Amino acid sequence: MSDDGASLRPLRTDLAPIAEAVEAADADAFVAVGDRFDDDLRYLTRFSGPDRAYALVVVPGDDAADRAVLCAPSLFREQAEREFVAGARARDGNGGDGVGGFHDGVAREVRTERAADHAGERAAAVVCDLLGDEDDDLTLLVPPSIPHDAAVYLERAGNALASTDAVERARSRKTDAEFDRLRRVQRAAVAGMARAETVLAESEVVEDETGAPALRWESSTLTTERLRRAVNATLAARGVRDAGDTAIGAGPSAADRHFVGDDPIRPGETALIDVSPRGPDGYRGDLTRTFVVEGDGGWERRAYLAVESAREAALAEIEPGVPAKTVHGEVAAELAAYGFDPNAEEGEAGFTHGAGHGVGVSLHESPSLSGAGELRPGHVVAVEPGVYDPNVGGIRLEDLVVVTEEGYEVLAEYPFGIVPVERE
Amino acid sequence: MSDDGASLRPLRTDLAPIAEAVEAADADAFVAVGDRFDDDLRYLTRFSGPDRAYALVVVPGDDAADRAVLCAPSLFREQAEREFVAGARARDGNGGDGVGGFHDGVAREVRTERAADHAGERAAAVVCDLLGDEDDDLTLLVPPSIPHDAAVYLERAGNALASTDAVERARSRKTDAEFDRLRRVQRAAVAGMARAETVLAESEVVEDETGAPALRWESSTLTTERLRRAVNATLAARGVRDAGDTAIGAGPSAADRHFVGDDPIRPGETALIDVSPRGPDGYRGDLTRTFVVEGDGGWERRAYLAVESAREAALAEIEPGVPAKTVHGEVAAELAAYGFDPNAEEGEAGFTHGAGHGVGVSLHESPSLSGAGELRPGHVVAVEPGVYDPNVGGIRLEDLVVVTEEGYEVLAEYPFGIVPVERE
Repeated sequence: MSDDGASLRPLRTDLAPIAEAVEAADADAFVAVGDRFDDDLRYLTRFSGPDRAYALVVVPGDDAADRAVLCAPSLFREQAEREFVAGARARDGNGGDGVGGFHDGVAREVRTERAADHAGERAAAVVCDLLGDEDDDLTLLVPPSIPHDAAVYLERAGNALASTDAVERARSRKTDAEFDRLRRVQRAAVAGMARAETVLAESEVVEDETGAPALRWESSTLTTERLRRAVNATLAARGVRDAGDTAIGAGPSAADRHFVGDDPIRPGETALIDVSPRGPDGYRGDLTRTFVVEGDGGWERRAYLAVESAREAALAEIEPGVPAKTVHGEVAAELAAYGFDPNAEEGEAGFTHGAGHGVGVSLHESPSLSGAGELRPGHVVAVEPGVYDPNVGGIRLEDLVVVTEEGYEVLAEYPFGIVPVERE
Repeated sequence: MSDDGASLRPLRTDLAPIAEAVEAADADAFVAVGDRFDDDLRYLTRFSGPDRAYALVVVPGDDAADRAVLCAPSLFREQAEREFVAGARARDGNGGDGVGGFHDGVAREVRTERAADHAGERAAAVVCDLLGDEDDDLTLLVPPSIPHDAAVYLERAGNALASTDAVERARSRKTDAEFDRLRRVQRAAVAGMARAETVLAESEVVEDETGAPALRWESSTLTTERLRRAVNATLAARGVRDAGDTAIGAGPSAADRHFVGDDPIRPGETALIDVSPRGPDGYRGDLTRTFVVEGDGGWERRAYLAVESAREAALAEIEPGVPAKTVHGEVAAELAAYGFDPNAEEGEAGFTHGAGHGVGVSLHESPSLSGAGELRPGHVVAVEPGVYDPNVGGIRLEDLVVVTEEGYEVLAEYPFGIVPVERE
């Protein structure tokens, strides 16, 4: 088989906290409805399922076992059984609680009957089947962005809905098995970055048809699109995908945080490379470096020093118990000390965004490094100080960091330096 | 710049039909809320925006111009202006109606004020601003799966909601500019398929460690994962991405329609390759071929002939005015004539799925070739007959077809044949 799957610990989601959230809210069940692009459902079920709606119902067991039912289209029954049910069985003998050997004591099953119905209607039928004789006025916890048609089906069946952030909270604390996936994806991002840096290092300075300095690589002009294709081919060869999030800007477009257009990459200008792939289990990586070929040591040197220094200041804060927004504050203070506006709006010169965000099955999830709450062990955050000048360019440095009991650990290291070097 | 962008016609969405749907329903406005993974919003706005919720409001103008407001996070203002507003300006002088030169006569603007609010709250504020003095009891058309929290914000602001299929209908009829994108992505799929077929043709038959026949390519065992990586690297080098939808199965896993695991590919077994990339403007491709290295002419030969024949029968039906489900019926009848069960359930031997589906910014959209309605010019459908035996393998052949005034046109041709040959 292939190279990098053998040592990964089994990926299982603990559904007991969802059942506990139902009980803590004095509600009766948890219901989520969405398609394969819904990262909450992906996390909860590990089902990589269809691009049409499916549903998950979790019911606390009181004295019996907690139960979880995945309502999947019949075409996907085998896949749902494999990913949702078999994947949650504790083959190593840990956990199980005597309910079919599930690692978290939550008994799982797949139902595909009434497949022509809307997933919300099927979820309502499952709720009724599991709880119908208990009470006629049931309260269901749902994620806030559950599809409205599904919510209407659940309400019409006589249920009251209340929103919960239990899934967001559960997702923010990663397990060892999740670290394995995040590290694997981030290593692929490192390989993609090495490809980009090597292409820049291999490029030669020439004059374009207007006489302006340009870069040539493999016999033609190097552009952001050509560089992105080279990076993405490297990611694909490593078994991860770019997910539309490989953003490469050059000069002024490096100040555009989400640039995916096609600009020539010129000597003396910042080439900002943000690689955020997605792995086969849905987990994301996030890595940014910025390079300048034959820079003149002007704006970009000062900006690079400021951002490197801000990065160090951010990392120095990261440990359990620290308010997350402290990290943003330290980055802002350090950038300000170098003369950059720490509160710039988009389109202005300075630091225009937050210092970082959680990363998991979503590229942006809890915790935010400029939001409420404290850092806790198991948080995985992208730390990304950056400064921009819309007329000149942008410098950003971004790494994935795990909050540990003692402080932090960088998930996959990549070297620093504004002058590109051959890395392959 | 790069090679394949020059000849594409400008991609613009005509919002007038959305405004007309509002008037036809005697409603007051159309509101959609979603993130970058919401294909309706991607189609309506051409905004490749953020992974958090944003909103679109469309208000018919009565005697004045129709108006459309995109509520975007402030970090994305420049991108929203470029993609939603500037991209809809009719630089070629067609259309415009004197409202800022918009090609469809719908005046567009971006609003980012109150960026900390929920997108549903912002949409409610825009509705109130544009229509507040007209009526206190407004009716808003919304897509059925609008997020529930957004729907609640809109309802709390005093609006009644009604769902509409106007977006689905608009999306099913493609414009020339959309054909350009679909053709470009399908050509990349053709390149990916050529890579897969070439790898299979280059592989040599060896014995694995158990003495069973296996394929070796570039010094190691050929598996579905290795072949998928080779295909996806080719897609990336062409500027499109696999989007997690390159499904390659071998032998029994070829009978699993969505197999993304890692199986050895063995001589004599079916290798089923389904390539469904996504291009930079969001449009999808969809192409499937099946090969057997050193087959013995048994099940797979008969199945290949049946599926080729079913494909011809399907194409012979495709022209405007034909009920879409006729295509499925013809495929089923042809497969039955070859002795395959045309109504098999998943996990059984035979034809287990529908004959095809529309393709656009979603991989599966209207029309379904086993659903209601008639084929119309501008429909783009994947035609995909297939037969499977869970113990043996699966054969599927799939092409993208445009319904034209005269009949149909295959979007990008790829050769047929069960024996792989070198195509690169």
